[in-house]
Amino acid sequence: MKTTHIEHIGIAVKSIDTSKSYYEEVLGMECYAVEEVPDQKVKTAFFKIGQTKIELLEATSEESTIAKFIEKRGEGIHHIAYAVDNVAECLKEAEAKGIQLIDKTPRKGADGLSIAFLHPKATGGVLTELCQPAEK
Amino acid sequence: MKTTHIEHIGIAVKSIDTSKSYYEEVLGMECYAVEEVPDQKVKTAFFKIGQTKIELLEATSEESTIAKFIEKRGEGIHHIAYAVDNVAECLKEAEAKGIQLIDKTPRKGADGLSIAFLHPKATGGVLTELCQPAEK
Repeated sequence: MKTTHIEHIGIAVKSIDTSKSYYEEVLGMECYAVEEVPDQKVKTAFFKIGQTKIELLEATSEESTIAKFIEKRGEGIHHIAYAVDNVAECLKEAEAKGIQLIDKTPRKGADGLSIAFLHPKATGGVLTELCQPAEK
Repeated sequence: MKTTHIEHIGIAVKSIDTSKSYYEEVLGMECYAVEEVPDQKVKTAFFKIGQTKIELLEATSEESTIAKFIEKRGEGIHHIAYAVDNVAECLKEAEAKGIQLIDKTPRKGADGLSIAFLHPKATGGVLTELCQPAEK
């Protein structure tokens, strides 16, 4: 697998409105997009820093994995997303190496990306996302 | 504060020897340094990916904050480190904005960096490090 850079870091927050000011006013980043991803029952806010995005994740339903994450562990870092050229091929390669997958095939994520998650049981407790830009 | 990129992501692991193969063989990154930081009672392993490093952290003592983190939450993402030009100035600025600090002044970190941590209570549960390259 060829991972080129950290595409984003996902951070679970109770409220984007409340958390945004820390990223903007303390860390000096600009929020360039707020988007709902109904599929994942989350609202997301994006900040760009170098090659990477910070993605704040707020649950829009108690059923959301983000709501469950916060209930169990509190607010904090939720996942790391690596940029790759071809998610489908990387999934095949990871599975062949014995890595447990959450998504067997790529699906549509926030910010126009094609994404898939590897299971944290297989990645040392780190929920790991692979993502590639959507085809134009 | 001007943060330029994600300098590294710190990941708490029980054993660098065990975890290394996931980063090398599955994610395709190369470990370019293994270093002990006696001050923090950790052994670290570094992988480069784009502008960012993945820093695996293994406790070298039960007193280490990494040992305590793993005991409480299991292996996983421990902190995010932002690259800045001047850690001392950023600390002053963060403190003036009401952010609780772990380090009031910069100290020496792994990989030749000058570092300081902000308290996760003040940063939405995200242990946050600021770091700048050491002066030559």
